[in-house]
Amino acid sequence: MSADGDRSAGEYDWFETTLRVRYAETDKMGVVYHSNFIVWFEVGRTDLCRQCGFLYRDMELEDDAHLMVVDVRCRYRRPARYDDDILVRTRVADFARRTLRFEYEIVRASTGELLAEGETKHVVTSAEGRPRAFPARQAGLVLARLKAMAAAGTLDVEQLDGTIKE
Amino acid sequence: MSADGDRSAGEYDWFETTLRVRYAETDKMGVVYHSNFIVWFEVGRTDLCRQCGFLYRDMELEDDAHLMVVDVRCRYRRPARYDDDILVRTRVADFARRTLRFEYEIVRASTGELLAEGETKHVVTSAEGRPRAFPARQAGLVLARLKAMAAAGTLDVEQLDGTIKE
Amino acid sequence: MSADGDRSAGEYDWFETTLRVRYAETDKMGVVYHSNFIVWFEVGRTDLCRQCGFLYRDMELEDDAHLMVVDVRCRYRRPARYDDDILVRTRVADFARRTLRFEYEIVRASTGELLAEGETKHVVTSAEGRPRAFPARQAGLVLARLKAMAAAGTLDVEQLDGTIKE
Amino acid sequence: MSADGDRSAGEYDWFETTLRVRYAETDKMGVVYHSNFIVWFEVGRTDLCRQCGFLYRDMELEDDAHLMVVDVRCRYRRPARYDDDILVRTRVADFARRTLRFEYEIVRASTGELLAEGETKHVVTSAEGRPRAFPARQAGLVLARLKAMAAAGTLDVEQLDGTIKE
Repeated sequence: MSADGDRSAGEYDWFETTLRVRYAETDKMGVVYHSNFIVWFEVGRTDLCRQCGFLYRDMELEDDAHLMVVDVRCRYRRPARYDDDILVRTRVADFARRTLRFEYEIVRASTGELLAEGETKHVVTSAEGRPRAFPARQAGLVLARLKAMAAAGTLDVEQLDGTIKE
Repeated sequence: MSADGDRSAGEYDWFETTLRVRYAETDKMGVVYHSNFIVWFEVGRTDLCRQCGFLYRDMELEDDAHLMVVDVRCRYRRPARYDDDILVRTRVADFARRTLRFEYEIVRASTGELLAEGETKHVVTSAEGRPRAFPARQAGLVLARLKAMAAAGTLDVEQLDGTIKE
Repeated sequence: MSADGDRSAGEYDWFETTLRVRYAETDKMGVVYHSNFIVWFEVGRTDLCRQCGFLYRDMELEDDAHLMVVDVRCRYRRPARYDDDILVRTRVADFARRTLRFEYEIVRASTGELLAEGETKHVVTSAEGRPRAFPARQAGLVLARLKAMAAAGTLDVEQLDGTIKE
Repeated sequence: MSADGDRSAGEYDWFETTLRVRYAETDKMGVVYHSNFIVWFEVGRTDLCRQCGFLYRDMELEDDAHLMVVDVRCRYRRPARYDDDILVRTRVADFARRTLRFEYEIVRASTGELLAEGETKHVVTSAEGRPRAFPARQAGLVLARLKAMAAAGTLDVEQLDGTIKE
């Protein structure tokens, strides 16, 4: 991620979704309680799937493929506040057959300020927790979408293309 | 429930469990966000089952019996605050074959102040949501516990005894 | 509320907002955990204020007026599921100087099915919890909006007009 | 942290607290939703303060010192389940005047299995978010407690002693 922290929303390899901070998400410090950013990462992942052309819900139900979280990290830079419009930016950072890594940026939409950045690592499993491969159909959809983003801009798809075949 | 609001912990028909307020449960008003009291009711129900001699977890897994919430109500009287020790008092208010009603009191343990009171209504269902009867073994355990409480004090078991047979 | 439970979204006295169910909001039954509906009520209230022309956030900050929840009720009819698009319908049911009551309907947007209905009662307080009147400016905005809704349809504004003056 | 993952509860530099998994903390996979582990870290920190002889609540209120979270990480190894008894182990990993780092282990109490491990980094701030030093009285209490633990066992207090003076 870039060093400056704040950035414009115009980069091509980020999937974006928005949400508004709920009162329930604040704590007695008057700001958003930190674990809620981790929930927002999940909102970003769900919407990334939708923007690629499939529903994560259906991939669980129809393909018995679940992206189990094995590692999460979040670095907090500025507080988020009740009723803020939040931009959740999600990027596929690594995409192998059995493991994935996503990166996230949490941005205050009104100012463009970066509030937090983070990442999650996942293994693909069945409902019973057995490792399995990411379903081929949805992998194709993700890859096609990433290639389209790359054609439109900055995404280094060669690296990802290699990654997904490994 | 009694009119005065505050009461001692010595009544015999209440099951009691304790918890400590988490920072995550507060909101920007500096007090516990109201929906968390509903979660505390669930903590009370789980512990009521344990105190009757069975685990709600096992009743779900082994008997495929789930207490689906169909109605919840909570009246708030005083705020709960971070790090408060909370006494959750839970009472079986109605116990029929297919429906149950619990009543709750949320008490600040250090002062005995009543912070909230509420109730939940449930229907017994399978995992797929089909209505079914409360399992006989666990019903027997609850009834036996209520009778023991009645023998020790104030519980009007005749009414409940009739209820459970309806 | 009407007896049938399911209804079209075309009534004029409901304020509407939408949200999508988060994975974090589900529980091991595979459906939305019941206390989250209470959070959705809050999302509906916040958006009702915005649709009336003011921010609840600002009313807290600038007018020191807070809608403390004193009573909440929710009746559950059908489960909500992960990734469902949810329509939160919110209505001002009573609007007096120092107390308010809102009614809610939680609807699955794709089918129009009523999933839950509920209500919350509030007293207007300062940050320190002292009762006070609902701020005049925002009360005017709410009333104006309700009158506009009434002019367009079914809202019985005479009753509310009387209520707010009491 | 050690490589093996599972460990006995007998080490001397960990503060320990227990909690029981709530139904509300599970998700549709049937296990605890991952962000709740981050909340459990907070439960561990709160209890660490109490075990050192002061309340984090009071340090916020009386000293205007807040441990703002700036970085959180959690690695998940095994799922936690509803009604599991959880042991939260918390350790002061770095303790400087203005920054702290805690490490955590989440253990299933019945089996001793390590379910997750993580860490949080904090800066000490006023309520308005201005950096400040950790209050001297409470720092003394933490240090004294760590020295007592070191006297009883394995804690390398020399390193921490140096850290806190930097």
